[in-house]
Amino acid sequence: MIDLYTAPTPNGYKASIALEEMGLPYEVHTVDLRKGEQREPAFLKMCPNGRIPAITDRDEDNFAVFESGAIMIYLAEKSGKFLPADVRGRSRVIQWLMFQMGGIGPMMGQANVFYRYFPEKIQPAIDRYQAEGRRLFEVLDTQLAEHEFLAGDYSIADMANWAWVRTHSWSGISIAGLDNLSRWMGAISARPGARAGVKVPVDIAELMDAKNKEDADSFSRNARSMVLGADSPSGD
Amino acid sequence: MIDLYTAPTPNGYKASIALEEMGLPYEVHTVDLRKGEQREPAFLKMCPNGRIPAITDRDEDNFAVFESGAIMIYLAEKSGKFLPADVRGRSRVIQWLMFQMGGIGPMMGQANVFYRYFPEKIQPAIDRYQAEGRRLFEVLDTQLAEHEFLAGDYSIADMANWAWVRTHSWSGISIAGLDNLSRWMGAISARPGARAGVKVPVDIAELMDAKNKEDADSFSRNARSMVLGADSPSGD
Repeated sequence: MIDLYTAPTPNGYKASIALEEMGLPYEVHTVDLRKGEQREPAFLKMCPNGRIPAITDRDEDNFAVFESGAIMIYLAEKSGKFLPADVRGRSRVIQWLMFQMGGIGPMMGQANVFYRYFPEKIQPAIDRYQAEGRRLFEVLDTQLAEHEFLAGDYSIADMANWAWVRTHSWSGISIAGLDNLSRWMGAISARPGARAGVKVPVDIAELMDAKNKEDADSFSRNARSMVLGADSPSGD
Repeated sequence: MIDLYTAPTPNGYKASIALEEMGLPYEVHTVDLRKGEQREPAFLKMCPNGRIPAITDRDEDNFAVFESGAIMIYLAEKSGKFLPADVRGRSRVIQWLMFQMGGIGPMMGQANVFYRYFPEKIQPAIDRYQAEGRRLFEVLDTQLAEHEFLAGDYSIADMANWAWVRTHSWSGISIAGLDNLSRWMGAISARPGARAGVKVPVDIAELMDAKNKEDADSFSRNARSMVLGADSPSGD
């Protein structure tokens, strides 16, 4: 049994998607970011960086794991699913997981910060991160032109990248013309496990849809209060 | 035998430090970022993201690995060194490696972009990334207060974080008062493997020292030309 400490952000959804897809039993504990619960001693003991998600594993003496990318690998190895055992297949998945951890996540996160939350409108910073996000999307699209999923079969690398890319409109980054990426997004969105994962602890997909202006404004105000506490580098 | 495609940046050094520490035989191929060699088809075939470092492994039919974090795990598993085999020890190392991939690297990279390379001086952006970098250093310092190395024994997590943190003055981020971090930096700097790794393909430590103003300016001009090609999100 896994205890999941999370909140409705792309990094949080990565963990819940993985748990749902793998069929591992888990209990959800919502961390209230607005109240700063991620900075309280009980949380910092699990995650010294003070950011969600974190898990503990009752089967391993409540061993704690922080960093969403490390959680994905831990759960894949525990369940024996979505991460091949052979040298090359395994490395391919880890490469595209790292691409999300070091590229898609941080760059979309910075786009969110400057496009959505920052008190001042700094156009060169908005432009920088939206352009970089689009470039990274094009890398995914090129890979998906010749592969059904990023690293061969559906894997934790797809879950991790999808959790972020699906929020592209929130970051103000277009996916127009990226047909392979769109095909891949549709395929993952159709999976019951992925659909269930992005509703834990709550579904904010609709709030992230900028067409729904009133809800988006409300979400943005809450998100801004988190980010400007300077404790969320990724701005998710 | 490993073929290493690299350039003198923190992410490049991560790979050469690992190769040196593990004692794996390798051949260096310098990628000239100013000439845009990382965007040429031969390089993109190894690394679809067009960024250094990348490796190929002659023992595995020239299997290619991109993303510095994935390279660290691949080499550790190949050599059987610096990444424990037991569930908990292994996860601890991966957690602190992910902390570098998703936190230290991207945030110091953005500090470099706005502090060193951006054509306009945007103080709120400089402040944001230098503050976030300092906060992340404090997380490391707290961990190192109770642990000799980040995840127990010296590991790929230490190599990855050290490759970045050692360039803190280039990012304009102070380590004053972080005595545990300083102790850890000194311990790694004294290791022959780490010292050799940061000289591949060349040693830019002195150029990164802002006290040497003329050399720093020259390095900065070159680095700017890379970053503003918009192909280096991390700004390293």
